[in-house]
Amino acid sequence: MRSMTTGHRVAMLGTGLIGDFYTMTLHSGRGRDRVAVVYSRTAERGAAFCRRWDVPHATTSIDDAVNHPDVDAVLIGVPNHLHEEAIATAVAAGKPVLCTKPLGRTGAEAQRMLDLVESSGVFAGYLEDLVYTPKTIKALAAVGGGAIGEVTWVRSRETHPGPHSAWFWDAGQAGGGAIVDLGCHCIEIIRSYLGKGNRPLEVMCWSDTLVHPIEAEDNAIALIRFESGAIGQFEVSWTFRGGMDLRDEVAGTEGTIWTNHFLRTGFEMYSSGDGGYVAEKAETASGWLFPVGDELAELGYVDMFADMLDALDEGRQPVETFYDGYVVNAVMDACYRSSASRQWEPVDVEWRGGTAPRIARQTRTEEGLTVIKEEHLPDGRRKLILKDPASGEFVDRVV
Amino acid sequence: MRSMTTGHRVAMLGTGLIGDFYTMTLHSGRGRDRVAVVYSRTAERGAAFCRRWDVPHATTSIDDAVNHPDVDAVLIGVPNHLHEEAIATAVAAGKPVLCTKPLGRTGAEAQRMLDLVESSGVFAGYLEDLVYTPKTIKALAAVGGGAIGEVTWVRSRETHPGPHSAWFWDAGQAGGGAIVDLGCHCIEIIRSYLGKGNRPLEVMCWSDTLVHPIEAEDNAIALIRFESGAIGQFEVSWTFRGGMDLRDEVAGTEGTIWTNHFLRTGFEMYSSGDGGYVAEKAETASGWLFPVGDELAELGYVDMFADMLDALDEGRQPVETFYDGYVVNAVMDACYRSSASRQWEPVDVEWRGGTAPRIARQTRTEEGLTVIKEEHLPDGRRKLILKDPASGEFVDRVV
Amino acid sequence: MRSMTTGHRVAMLGTGLIGDFYTMTLHSGRGRDRVAVVYSRTAERGAAFCRRWDVPHATTSIDDAVNHPDVDAVLIGVPNHLHEEAIATAVAAGKPVLCTKPLGRTGAEAQRMLDLVESSGVFAGYLEDLVYTPKTIKALAAVGGGAIGEVTWVRSRETHPGPHSAWFWDAGQAGGGAIVDLGCHCIEIIRSYLGKGNRPLEVMCWSDTLVHPIEAEDNAIALIRFESGAIGQFEVSWTFRGGMDLRDEVAGTEGTIWTNHFLRTGFEMYSSGDGGYVAEKAETASGWLFPVGDELAELGYVDMFADMLDALDEGRQPVETFYDGYVVNAVMDACYRSSASRQWEPVDVEWRGGTAPRIARQTRTEEGLTVIKEEHLPDGRRKLILKDPASGEFVDRVV
Amino acid sequence: MRSMTTGHRVAMLGTGLIGDFYTMTLHSGRGRDRVAVVYSRTAERGAAFCRRWDVPHATTSIDDAVNHPDVDAVLIGVPNHLHEEAIATAVAAGKPVLCTKPLGRTGAEAQRMLDLVESSGVFAGYLEDLVYTPKTIKALAAVGGGAIGEVTWVRSRETHPGPHSAWFWDAGQAGGGAIVDLGCHCIEIIRSYLGKGNRPLEVMCWSDTLVHPIEAEDNAIALIRFESGAIGQFEVSWTFRGGMDLRDEVAGTEGTIWTNHFLRTGFEMYSSGDGGYVAEKAETASGWLFPVGDELAELGYVDMFADMLDALDEGRQPVETFYDGYVVNAVMDACYRSSASRQWEPVDVEWRGGTAPRIARQTRTEEGLTVIKEEHLPDGRRKLILKDPASGEFVDRVV
Repeated sequence: MRSMTTGHRVAMLGTGLIGDFYTMTLHSGRGRDRVAVVYSRTAERGAAFCRRWDVPHATTSIDDAVNHPDVDAVLIGVPNHLHEEAIATAVAAGKPVLCTKPLGRTGAEAQRMLDLVESSGVFAGYLEDLVYTPKTIKALAAVGGGAIGEVTWVRSRETHPGPHSAWFWDAGQAGGGAIVDLGCHCIEIIRSYLGKGNRPLEVMCWSDTLVHPIEAEDNAIALIRFESGAIGQFEVSWTFRGGMDLRDEVAGTEGTIWTNHFLRTGFEMYSSGDGGYVAEKAETASGWLFPVGDELAELGYVDMFADMLDALDEGRQPVETFYDGYVVNAVMDACYRSSASRQWEPVDVEWRGGTAPRIARQTRTEEGLTVIKEEHLPDGRRKLILKDPASGEFVDRVV
Repeated sequence: MRSMTTGHRVAMLGTGLIGDFYTMTLHSGRGRDRVAVVYSRTAERGAAFCRRWDVPHATTSIDDAVNHPDVDAVLIGVPNHLHEEAIATAVAAGKPVLCTKPLGRTGAEAQRMLDLVESSGVFAGYLEDLVYTPKTIKALAAVGGGAIGEVTWVRSRETHPGPHSAWFWDAGQAGGGAIVDLGCHCIEIIRSYLGKGNRPLEVMCWSDTLVHPIEAEDNAIALIRFESGAIGQFEVSWTFRGGMDLRDEVAGTEGTIWTNHFLRTGFEMYSSGDGGYVAEKAETASGWLFPVGDELAELGYVDMFADMLDALDEGRQPVETFYDGYVVNAVMDACYRSSASRQWEPVDVEWRGGTAPRIARQTRTEEGLTVIKEEHLPDGRRKLILKDPASGEFVDRVV
Repeated sequence: MRSMTTGHRVAMLGTGLIGDFYTMTLHSGRGRDRVAVVYSRTAERGAAFCRRWDVPHATTSIDDAVNHPDVDAVLIGVPNHLHEEAIATAVAAGKPVLCTKPLGRTGAEAQRMLDLVESSGVFAGYLEDLVYTPKTIKALAAVGGGAIGEVTWVRSRETHPGPHSAWFWDAGQAGGGAIVDLGCHCIEIIRSYLGKGNRPLEVMCWSDTLVHPIEAEDNAIALIRFESGAIGQFEVSWTFRGGMDLRDEVAGTEGTIWTNHFLRTGFEMYSSGDGGYVAEKAETASGWLFPVGDELAELGYVDMFADMLDALDEGRQPVETFYDGYVVNAVMDACYRSSASRQWEPVDVEWRGGTAPRIARQTRTEEGLTVIKEEHLPDGRRKLILKDPASGEFVDRVV
Repeated sequence: MRSMTTGHRVAMLGTGLIGDFYTMTLHSGRGRDRVAVVYSRTAERGAAFCRRWDVPHATTSIDDAVNHPDVDAVLIGVPNHLHEEAIATAVAAGKPVLCTKPLGRTGAEAQRMLDLVESSGVFAGYLEDLVYTPKTIKALAAVGGGAIGEVTWVRSRETHPGPHSAWFWDAGQAGGGAIVDLGCHCIEIIRSYLGKGNRPLEVMCWSDTLVHPIEAEDNAIALIRFESGAIGQFEVSWTFRGGMDLRDEVAGTEGTIWTNHFLRTGFEMYSSGDGGYVAEKAETASGWLFPVGDELAELGYVDMFADMLDALDEGRQPVETFYDGYVVNAVMDACYRSSASRQWEPVDVEWRGGTAPRIARQTRTEEGLTVIKEEHLPDGRRKLILKDPASGEFVDRVV
């Protein structure tokens, strides 16, 4: 029997939506981990959180939370501009630290946090939940098994009508707008499908503030070119109407994958009245509705914490490390530079991933002619489109 | 903090597909429960199971497995004709018992098992996983919250190309064919949507053996009439082509719900080659494929064991009890009687559920006329279809 | 070049929803047929219809409409209880007649209309539009081409919140409730998939009036057993919420087909406001909406009239004849008898379709054992489930 | 009654796949138009085409075809490099001309064709079928009716495994690769949703040749920035696996629209065997298949020819003119320039469309604070995210 620890006692820093999700996940099912202390800026929120999730202690001091004697791991869910301080506190206490996305507001900030945990040797995990959804995990396994050949293109889309808390809208605290909030998910999903050894070389990004009266971008689209020649594409928006649209599409030389994490999951409901809560960021409780069975599982929280805490117990690295968080920040930096310069901008990153070969191009010949395409006709014959390498002429031939 | 037990040490009886699923579920994620002993008819299968799932002990004796000193709960996954013996052994040992579906091969057999656990006072749970899928749990909550009004109709469909083990095909060991194998799921899903206090009164069932060279039915359709007037409908088949089709549809006076548990869950893949395992009962590994993200969660195993073991820890009844298993068997008995008699057959059950009122019919009047239907026209006016209660005449009127 | 007629000049009898749909279809696209005269019970409705669809003449006399010198074909869209009179008028005028569904209110009434057109020799077509949807036409071709093997089961579902005109709700004028209104479509869809030479032998039907304050049934489910052993199943309802649910499912020994004609057709819209008309029987104009691209085409009207008028021009029978309408009525008669008797009731019909063989059952053996099922394992091996015909024992074997 | 012409007699230039589709459409249903003469480069193909579609005359001379006395309209389906010559021939004959997409290989070429038809006054239509699909027509009407507010983003995706004829693969004859072949559809779909008076200002495009051994691009992605601030995005590929993926997505300030024209249209089939033709560019005839009911209608051909020929009869312009074709070419020119320069490139076009206002941004205030976002909480209260215009601080407040 695999040895089991008795579980972890966690300091939860932050009581916003993400703190709720993280705690619900740890306390769900037959899990052996629990939140032991919660930190909130105000005593009221901390007390409410304790009642809501049956947590024994609350504090308004990050330091007290991290250093509480019951605590053996630190879980960071505070606004982006407080990540660095929180990580420093955990590192000072020598306690493992798990940090929500994005790791930093910039690549430079992320790099400092990465240096901090690596030089101190404390365990660190980057809480990128959408890489851990059950669909993504199985899709990545299928890609790894060769089911769709070499990946040529990944689209990751994350859009909704805008975040729930005020600080997200303040570019100073958040580090940006929809790119920093949502693009970080997309970038890591794209990297996971294309291979983490496949270096993101450069970025072309468009962003604009189309609808909301804010300074930060509420819409952005970016193309990321990787060393293999493959292209990553993300679309993020705080102005989408209809709920939270989380979809990924992957094209390969031998197949394609489509995942829909939230709006079309095989659960459809029409209600003429009001049946209460539907799903995160759902806009209505009547008409046709698309609830999600188990949001914690479908959004990846369950498998993410299993990987993180198992990694901690087993003395291995989790799937998502601070280095990954740093790469994501470096790509987002390039997005912002490209939005401003209107140019392809290089991704400025200390690369550890080695090199990736160019996507292989087929070079089959038939009777001295290059085979461009082969089709099977309904009557069983093959149709070839051929190119004469000498003359450059194209012909089609049925054989 | 909610007190946590240190988890359970389970005797797993049976090493077939269901034993694998149960054990994978208990051992998944950050769970604190483990299989401590496995029983198999052959030493080879037991040893392979131990290696596969990291289980410390195997035995070819049900008695030894149940009475092993490490074991504090018994999990039954043996063929149907062995359930009664296995339960009797657990009861004799005074250990909690969880039994796979169907509880018995007949209502009489199920009633004996129910009597056994109730008279002895041991904890007993009925492992009806499909009532626990994340979609079903949320859908039941929506129905309970009034989102679709009063439920008038439930369709539950479970079809696939046929089971994987030989004993299922032997009506003697299994107790029947597709009805006993699959209908038991459908019946309990239907009861859950219609309310467990809503008595199943009578059944009309058609069954036939259309394709496979067996004695048992490979296709069946049944209608179940409930006290409220609502109708349950199930379709089961061992001859469906295309994978495992698990869909439920619920109609209510104010809305409708559709759930698709397996074949269309927002995860779609095209593969020209072969990427390995897709999902239980998938028929191919190329072309358009519909994998399932996390089968254990989507099929309800995760939430089922959480409820069962939490109930055991908390001294409460689980959602699915042996009484429920007994009711399901009683309905299936009526299905078989109806297939043979070609009549509506009463459900012969010791009913504990009280009474349910008839679905309410609207009786609104407008200027002395009965309102049959009201529509909103595109131009904002209302169209009424009215009946004169005196003359019996129907008119439509735009107001 | 195929010779083209100059098109037909049609008398449209009736100005309800179906009259609008029929006329829109005839006048759509580059068609060469036109409505020349419209009959309505009131002069106001007739005049409005002429303005709406650019029709030159209106009358309040069926006789005048049919005998108008411009008219060379008669199109019946009046309430059910007026079909017989309208057909008799057309037959007396010796003009081709196309009658909306259902043909009659009962089999006896339908048989009189059938006799009338057959004895007089006038061309007659039965306007069963849902057999002509583009999806159904292609699906029937696939079934005919062997794509899903032998058909074992067809489910046809047609449900919505109830009809728009008062006369539908009056069982006297309509001949019944949801069965007569909607079941007629389902029965003909089922027959088309199972083969028109496959005799419907008997029917088991449940019906009830669950929601609306009417005498006629607002919900019904029926099973129809055919000579081949295949089973047809229909579900009709006037109490469904969420729009108009038109779905067919077909299971065969080698495949399956699902068609969704209205609520999920690859066109999805979320609107926070009001963008006007969505689709027939849509219940709302905000929230998630599922419009239909071209309702006339998707509901089969375009292909139906093409077949009907081409058949008339070419001197052949259309796909749907009055005999088909009569068979549908005979099946519906059996539905009503079965609802009342709570028994399987024989379909009382003058059968012209010949006989159909029983669905073939496989009988392959392997080393003297009957092959029950064969599976391909992920590692490339085959797993066989075998039965010993001598002992009756079942075994599984990996080869 | 609307006066009807007796229909047109058309010269079909070209006998490739598009010639088949065009002719099938004209000859389908109850239409009154016919192909009278077909031109093909070889007599064999012309003769086969005549037999296939019941066409009376074939010729190997474009001049003879256009000037045939039966012919009153010219339909161009020859490879791209022959469009200009064919149009000149039609203009010289003074006969109306309908040209397939793309109009030219470059903006300059398109502009010459535009000048030719405009200076001569002959009727000219641009055959952009995908703007005419039934879904697109209804979606455009919904957008025009305000259902989704102001449009902020349109994604148009057209990908498949590559074209069927050799000349497409030859950049000289075709004018490019996937951009010229597929991007022309996407650009016009985007323009239709954003408004034809909304000027495309500049383009950023990535393209690459990832898989096929050709010079032209087999993958491209482009962003098109419009005067209103809205962004158009297209993805085209000749390396997609799984069939032909035609999807459009539209986001607006008040809603969203998704259309799927080909791969998921509510028609799903599983076949273990082979049932023949499925749909254009389908890759297999077994496994899960997604046939299209009526390809001619779903791809827009039916409504396109109805608009074109009605416009000709009514003396009005069709929805898609040569000017539209010229704008599309101008945008594609900018795509190619941008691919090469890796910069945003201006769209160089003689603009006739006037000006479009910037997408309106909301500016509501509440008690002197700017309202950033308003949410409705489950308990009925409103949550506001507010910004203090003086301090720049963001707060959330439940009211």
